[in-house]
Amino acid sequence: MKILLVGANGTIGKAVSAELEARHEIIAVGRTSGRYQADITDIDSLKALFDKVGRVDAVISAAGNLPFAPLSEFTPELYKQGWQDKLQGQINLVLAGSDYVDDGGSFTLTSGILSEVPIRFGSAASAVNAALEGFARAAAIELPRGQRINVVSPTVLTESLPDYGPYFRGFESVPAARVALAYSRSAEGAQTGQVFKVQ
Amino acid sequence: MKILLVGANGTIGKAVSAELEARHEIIAVGRTSGRYQADITDIDSLKALFDKVGRVDAVISAAGNLPFAPLSEFTPELYKQGWQDKLQGQINLVLAGSDYVDDGGSFTLTSGILSEVPIRFGSAASAVNAALEGFARAAAIELPRGQRINVVSPTVLTESLPDYGPYFRGFESVPAARVALAYSRSAEGAQTGQVFKVQ
Ligand SMILES: NC(=O)c1ccc[n+]([C@@H]2O[C@H](COP(=O)([O-])OP(=O)(O)OC[C@H]3O[C@@H](n4cnc5c(N)ncnc54)[C@H](OP(=O)(O)O)[C@@H]3O)[C@@H](O)[C@H]2O)c1
Ligand SMILES: NC(=O)c1ccc[n+]([C@@H]2O[C@H](COP(=O)([O-])OP(=O)(O)OC[C@H]3O[C@@H](n4cnc5c(N)ncnc54)[C@H](OP(=O)(O)O)[C@@H]3O)[C@@H](O)[C@H]2O)c1
Repeated sequence: MKILLVGANGTIGKAVSAELEARHEIIAVGRTSGRYQADITDIDSLKALFDKVGRVDAVISAAGNLPFAPLSEFTPELYKQGWQDKLQGQINLVLAGSDYVDDGGSFTLTSGILSEVPIRFGSAASAVNAALEGFARAAAIELPRGQRINVVSPTVLTESLPDYGPYFRGFESVPAARVALAYSRSAEGAQTGQVFKVQ
Repeated sequence: MKILLVGANGTIGKAVSAELEARHEIIAVGRTSGRYQADITDIDSLKALFDKVGRVDAVISAAGNLPFAPLSEFTPELYKQGWQDKLQGQINLVLAGSDYVDDGGSFTLTSGILSEVPIRFGSAASAVNAALEGFARAAAIELPRGQRINVVSPTVLTESLPDYGPYFRGFESVPAARVALAYSRSAEGAQTGQVFKVQ
């Protein structure tokens, strides 16, 4: 398969590449890294990307930024960063990519354990991650030509503990290589509208 | 209790009023109707509202608008209406209201069955409703002074079938009076971080 992987140079993206590149052609995309550059928050940059890349069998997103802050310090502007970046950005990939994904091809987006399990400072993350899962359930019944969509919801990655460990005390972490399997299951399997938890 | 009810003149709001007004003082708020006018999409209008109303025991939101369209016709701008209105609007009530809600007092927001069950044209609604449920789970662990937050998730109301029936073929509807009980359970009970489904 020809797989467009957005965020290929990230912690998750590198593991997804490692899992899939032996069997498939991976087209690496990043904001600044990768073979192609695009910004998921800007749908025109994604349309330009798909124009260049052409038809693909699968689109995988392991990208998207979230604001974190105490609830008492959150503002509408800060939430908006979450709606526009990790949420709308990944939805933009579906809107821009649907014309380019083959019959039966797939979209795989990334949410995270905070959709179900809250942590301090995580009110935007919980909302955005849950929204992505709701979006995927809905988009699954409307995508054309048998296209599929799933979401991978990892807990904190072992590789990310140096950065996020203090926010996830007591959470069992998972190695990126295990998380990568869920993206394989989504893209190489046949399910749609699912949340693949790796927790 | 002194209960601020946003959307008091709506299909759900009227039933919530009817359920609660025998036992409590209801302060009815609407965009154009009610004793006070405010726009939940504008946090400054909510701050002005709470300045006028002062301390309350509970805030109930039965308001918020959503865009509906085929997935293939959705645009980032159309999704944004959902993020800014039903989602951010109800979050704004929590941000603006927290200083005014008594110890142990509650927020009750409204999502809807589409968070879990998709319908055609409902990709923004599914995302927004799921986001509200994720937000409430997260806000519940950060609200100060024992303040609580829950979400009521109704299926389509029997009273709304003339408007929304064609989108909900085969769904069992619920009368507004049954939905209203869930708001009572949230405001008059002691739970937090919950989704009360009325389906
Ligand atoms: N790490 C965890 O423990 C964990 C757990 C659960 C969920 N997640 C979620 O998984 C996703 C990826 O996390 P990660 O830790 O792998 O992130 P990461 O290491 O920071 O990598 C992010 C990747 O996404 C790309 N990217 C960022 N913003 C972009 C944009 N606007 N447009 C296009 N590409 C963009 C980056 O490109 P450049 O390389 O060019 O900067 C980078 O390749 C995030 O949504 C995160 O919330 C992570
Ligand atoms: N009806 C259903 O079958 C159903 C099912 C599941 C979920 N829901 C959800 O429940 C909520 C209420 O639905 P409904 O059918 O009762 O709605 P509705 O009959 O249209 O009433 C909406 C109420 O909210 C007020 N309102 C609307 N936008 C507002 C804003 N920006 N700021 C302040 N107030 C605003 C309106 O004020 P004015 O009166 O001044 O215009 C009105 O009182 C919505 O979020 C809807 O998605 C409804």
